[in-house]
Amino acid sequence: MPGRVDITSVGQRTSWIDVPRDCDFTIFNIPFGVFRAQDGTSKCCSAIGNFVIDLSVISGAGYFDEAGIPKEVFGSGTLNNLIALGKERTNKIRTRLIELLSEDNVELKSRQDIVSKALIPMQTVSMQMPLTIGDYTDFYSSKEHASNIGSLLRDPNNPLLPNWRHLPVAYHGRVSSIVISGTPVIRPSGQFKRLPTDSSPVFGPTERLDYELEMAFVIGRNSDVGEPIPIGKAEEYIFGFLLFNDWSARDIQSWEYAPLGPFLSKNFMSSVSPWIVTTEAMAPFRVRGPEPEVQLLPYLQTEGELNYDIRLDVELRTGQGASRHLSTGNFRHMYWNSAQQLAHHTITGCNVRIGDLMASGTISGPEENASGCLMELTRNGQTPIQLHDGSIRTFLLDGDTVIMRAHGQKEHIRVGFGEVTGTVSAFR
Amino acid sequence: MPGRVDITSVGQRTSWIDVPRDCDFTIFNIPFGVFRAQDGTSKCCSAIGNFVIDLSVISGAGYFDEAGIPKEVFGSGTLNNLIALGKERTNKIRTRLIELLSEDNVELKSRQDIVSKALIPMQTVSMQMPLTIGDYTDFYSSKEHASNIGSLLRDPNNPLLPNWRHLPVAYHGRVSSIVISGTPVIRPSGQFKRLPTDSSPVFGPTERLDYELEMAFVIGRNSDVGEPIPIGKAEEYIFGFLLFNDWSARDIQSWEYAPLGPFLSKNFMSSVSPWIVTTEAMAPFRVRGPEPEVQLLPYLQTEGELNYDIRLDVELRTGQGASRHLSTGNFRHMYWNSAQQLAHHTITGCNVRIGDLMASGTISGPEENASGCLMELTRNGQTPIQLHDGSIRTFLLDGDTVIMRAHGQKEHIRVGFGEVTGTVSAFR
Repeated sequence: MPGRVDITSVGQRTSWIDVPRDCDFTIFNIPFGVFRAQDGTSKCCSAIGNFVIDLSVISGAGYFDEAGIPKEVFGSGTLNNLIALGKERTNKIRTRLIELLSEDNVELKSRQDIVSKALIPMQTVSMQMPLTIGDYTDFYSSKEHASNIGSLLRDPNNPLLPNWRHLPVAYHGRVSSIVISGTPVIRPSGQFKRLPTDSSPVFGPTERLDYELEMAFVIGRNSDVGEPIPIGKAEEYIFGFLLFNDWSARDIQSWEYAPLGPFLSKNFMSSVSPWIVTTEAMAPFRVRGPEPEVQLLPYLQTEGELNYDIRLDVELRTGQGASRHLSTGNFRHMYWNSAQQLAHHTITGCNVRIGDLMASGTISGPEENASGCLMELTRNGQTPIQLHDGSIRTFLLDGDTVIMRAHGQKEHIRVGFGEVTGTVSAFR
Repeated sequence: MPGRVDITSVGQRTSWIDVPRDCDFTIFNIPFGVFRAQDGTSKCCSAIGNFVIDLSVISGAGYFDEAGIPKEVFGSGTLNNLIALGKERTNKIRTRLIELLSEDNVELKSRQDIVSKALIPMQTVSMQMPLTIGDYTDFYSSKEHASNIGSLLRDPNNPLLPNWRHLPVAYHGRVSSIVISGTPVIRPSGQFKRLPTDSSPVFGPTERLDYELEMAFVIGRNSDVGEPIPIGKAEEYIFGFLLFNDWSARDIQSWEYAPLGPFLSKNFMSSVSPWIVTTEAMAPFRVRGPEPEVQLLPYLQTEGELNYDIRLDVELRTGQGASRHLSTGNFRHMYWNSAQQLAHHTITGCNVRIGDLMASGTISGPEENASGCLMELTRNGQTPIQLHDGSIRTFLLDGDTVIMRAHGQKEHIRVGFGEVTGTVSAFR
């Protein structure tokens, strides 16, 4: 099983850097990102506690020399070159950082001159888009989400379409408008029908702006056109995961989507979290996923722990200062795992490239309040949500901020994804 | 009207280069492409007659100095940097080439040393992917195509869905598998149902491999997230057009496409022609498109000649040497023009980037045999086509080559797109 670890081998490791309780960036994590340095350049980084780690400084001081990591990969404004080193070498970067940051290690700790340059307080830096993305695909792999949507829009007694249990349904998304967490979300205008019985569409700012809570994996290795990736090797092509908010305009979507799928209702913007957590850091949280409900074709059959026990939280804050915790879910419930998604995506010979994003689709779950979008939580606007100040929401209003967070916790090991946020602003 | 020309101003221009009758690459064309030079590097080029014009040689000799064109844009393996100069300057490149190649001009003609380096017999060079494509969108803008497909799959009395006349339906496609003309098309495998009543899908090589005849336009200018492109300015963002074959697996498509649209049935491969013909070269062929059949929302209303009278031909050649002319159509029948497509695509604030491709969707027409795919020509396989050797086709067989061509002709002015071809090979 690629990336599997015996949890006991991880040990009780702690760092000489102070890591606050409930911090996402423990010594067990060591994610990758890109930050804007004071000189205006963008550089590759990791994180521990409340610090960003400038990897170009660590590398420049020779700490990765033994691992044979070329220094130039860290000075780039994207992680693509680093990821292109391959999982064996990117693992070496991560394990070397864990070593250097461990309580009992003085190699870096003793060099205050380097530490003072390499460790930068997180609140003083701005994080950048971590990747150059070639293609982005959005799956539809949460059974609870697909069922809830199918119940609302089609048949509550038979919410899943016949193909859903046989293949991981997906569609291609727009890359140009994928932005880093924190980028303002401009309410899109478009055409839609207020009532299905209206004879003609109207034009205006969407009246049903929604978020979609998703995780996305990052392709870590190129494949060739005409060469499917066998399911047993699929995880070798996955570098890591991040949080993904697939902002959606539900009124535009319902009018436009037949017969070729969502288009403008999704492509105005999607937001990603700045940190990519490697599959190696996620290994302690591996769990078995749900059993298939039909006999799968051999190219989609998997065994073992291919899902991840990662808690997911969504919070809403309004422009007036009210807030509400909207949902708590878990990534473990995904009906289709990432190996199945990638094997399916490439079975026809479609190739993938380093930096491609594969998003899960909205993640909902069987628990109450585990739905990953307002369309489900408010039953398509029929049952509004009340906020702490008494105001209500069906869909997002201007000034609303959506904050998504994710982390795994197993015994003393915590690995988190940070957050992806976006504040809705009025169309200019 | 951007790019409009008075046909008489083009004159009776001929070139001192011999241009065969019915050649696509006349002095009125001067398209852009990328070829692999003898030293293995890829360079930007144009074409006239049976010659590729190495633009780095023309530029190196100083012929573009007066127009202020930086020499480095021609030595790149993609046209993106050249296109990024902007239409005003790329127009200058084209008009300067027309000047240099004109019968009565001796500036270049008299310099045999430069001519012998710059003009390379077309059959001796291999053409490359001309663009780095950020995103690719496929529209569905031929009314005849959408109606024919709707008749076959839904309701012959009401083949168009309610949204079709109100907006240019589209979906996002896969960029990684867009290849240059001539790349072998490996028959994709996937899951499908042989009969709609089958209880489970089967797995195997597609049994309904089809082509789709399309034109695609190339974005020539970046726009910003949150900034719609007004329809009156849309054509300023279009650099030119090429031929596009959106290979499709119809059996995979019909099983997978609900509710999020085509995915694997399209993303195994799409082929593009090597030459991008500028909108300036296409100006003589401008015509009015069909009148809208419903009142359009203001952001989609256009006036004037925004369609192009471009003849489209598809030919099939089998591995056994049989051939058949499959269709003759015309790009002029498109219900939605490219300005409408781009205004719609960006109305929500979705941004576009230089090199993005926007394909028309299958181009069919009102004439007999003007259908742009086998699904229409054979009525979803019900009425096979007979080839000259007596063999028949419903969908493509291994060894079949599909050749698409396009050209405009107005009086003595001919401007062509060359061809996009692909030969189907068995899945390995």
